[in-house]
Amino acid sequence: MAPGLPDKKKAEDEQSSKKNLIHLCNPHLEQMKEDVLYHFALGTGTQDFPTLFGEVKHGMGIPSIAIMLHELIKLLHHAKCSSVTVIRIGTSGGIGLDPGSVVITRQAVDATFKPQFEQLILGKNVIRSTDLDEQLANELMQCSNEIAQFNTVIGNTMCTLDFYEGQARLDGAICSYTEGEKLQYLKEAYDAGVRNIEMESSVFAAMCKLSGIKAAVVCVTLLNRLEGDQINTPHDVLVEYQQRPQKLVGHFIKKYLGKV
Amino acid sequence: MAPGLPDKKKAEDEQSSKKNLIHLCNPHLEQMKEDVLYHFALGTGTQDFPTLFGEVKHGMGIPSIAIMLHELIKLLHHAKCSSVTVIRIGTSGGIGLDPGSVVITRQAVDATFKPQFEQLILGKNVIRSTDLDEQLANELMQCSNEIAQFNTVIGNTMCTLDFYEGQARLDGAICSYTEGEKLQYLKEAYDAGVRNIEMESSVFAAMCKLSGIKAAVVCVTLLNRLEGDQINTPHDVLVEYQQRPQKLVGHFIKKYLGKV
Repeated sequence: MAPGLPDKKKAEDEQSSKKNLIHLCNPHLEQMKEDVLYHFALGTGTQDFPTLFGEVKHGMGIPSIAIMLHELIKLLHHAKCSSVTVIRIGTSGGIGLDPGSVVITRQAVDATFKPQFEQLILGKNVIRSTDLDEQLANELMQCSNEIAQFNTVIGNTMCTLDFYEGQARLDGAICSYTEGEKLQYLKEAYDAGVRNIEMESSVFAAMCKLSGIKAAVVCVTLLNRLEGDQINTPHDVLVEYQQRPQKLVGHFIKKYLGKV
Repeated sequence: MAPGLPDKKKAEDEQSSKKNLIHLCNPHLEQMKEDVLYHFALGTGTQDFPTLFGEVKHGMGIPSIAIMLHELIKLLHHAKCSSVTVIRIGTSGGIGLDPGSVVITRQAVDATFKPQFEQLILGKNVIRSTDLDEQLANELMQCSNEIAQFNTVIGNTMCTLDFYEGQARLDGAICSYTEGEKLQYLKEAYDAGVRNIEMESSVFAAMCKLSGIKAAVVCVTLLNRLEGDQINTPHDVLVEYQQRPQKLVGHFIKKYLGKV
């Protein structure tokens, strides 16, 4: 994640900064005396942020990242950060790519390959767009070309609620479909432009878009799901794969700061 | 969680044990040479389970607990455990209860108060029952009466995908409803028998039911959501609250083992 840098020339930049401030789509927050970011163990009345940050741990999947984003977005807002870019990096299962390939997400799609995220609010389904920043994706692709160390593609990313049945794996405790049906589904995903599958991108894209945050998703693929479900690659190779999104985004941050 | 004890008198109990073995609803597993429980970092070909277990961490919400359960159920199956009871303990938001009350779940319901869990498989919605074991819930209620240290009720538990908008909170980074609409929704939930809200019970109930595991959910309520969204209770009081489900289930396990 790369929050925007504090502006050096505060006075002259204040005007342009203001319009780039994090926008909280919630009118209730302004009326609260103190705002407690429960899962970050932070309150706006609390001073000792660094000590408290030591306790933070988060999990996997849409609920975990949604909780983190609600509180991160409020944190950025309370801190008056502006022009913020947030990049999710992580691992994923690939479709039709050599393991170790990196996917920069064009669109985060659901299990029916639609670029949307369904959010249940007061018991009703609300559909949100999962559009990501096209220019940012292209800039990240350019960074990968510059470091030229691994294969990188721009493609759609399917976001699921479940690692096993939700991703058509055959190796869960419960499985009601055949290998043929699994492969047909994954090929349909490929034909819809899906190049990898993970469990956070759709709510990440939707919440960043609503809050006016420029966002990208960069995930390495640990296996080619057309060839299997389990990860048998040696540990040291997986560790190197997992560093690839960090290398790519690290290069992007250094370039943005004028260090390369 | 309380896995069933290994039978002492193996020979005579073998017959009755077999029919209580964990049932894996997946015909593909039998054909695999080795089964890797990826998120537990375990393989059936691996010997040194205790050392490897040290690395396990899990997150929050349906995807995290689903991953854990797929791999736990397979683990119990590979270990030939029988007559297994699994009890989820945790924290929740209460509806119409004093904070610190414990809820033993009658039914895990979704955001529309239906006792079901929707699982997306190959892009299609599959509806699964979230019935829990009624006798086990009553036995746990009896345990709470015996220790008589805190208020305990049997009630429905609403399971959501999101902590903020999904639970009608007013303090998320995004909120599109009024306080009146929030309270109306929570009161509708109360009228439908819902006494607390958390983020894991529905998939937990559904997967245990499918796999033939006796299951219960015991969660303490940290606040009364009809009175607010943020948790302002002192840390030491919260710590004591969080120990209540452990105390209750601890008493149940000791009673089951004949130690009380």
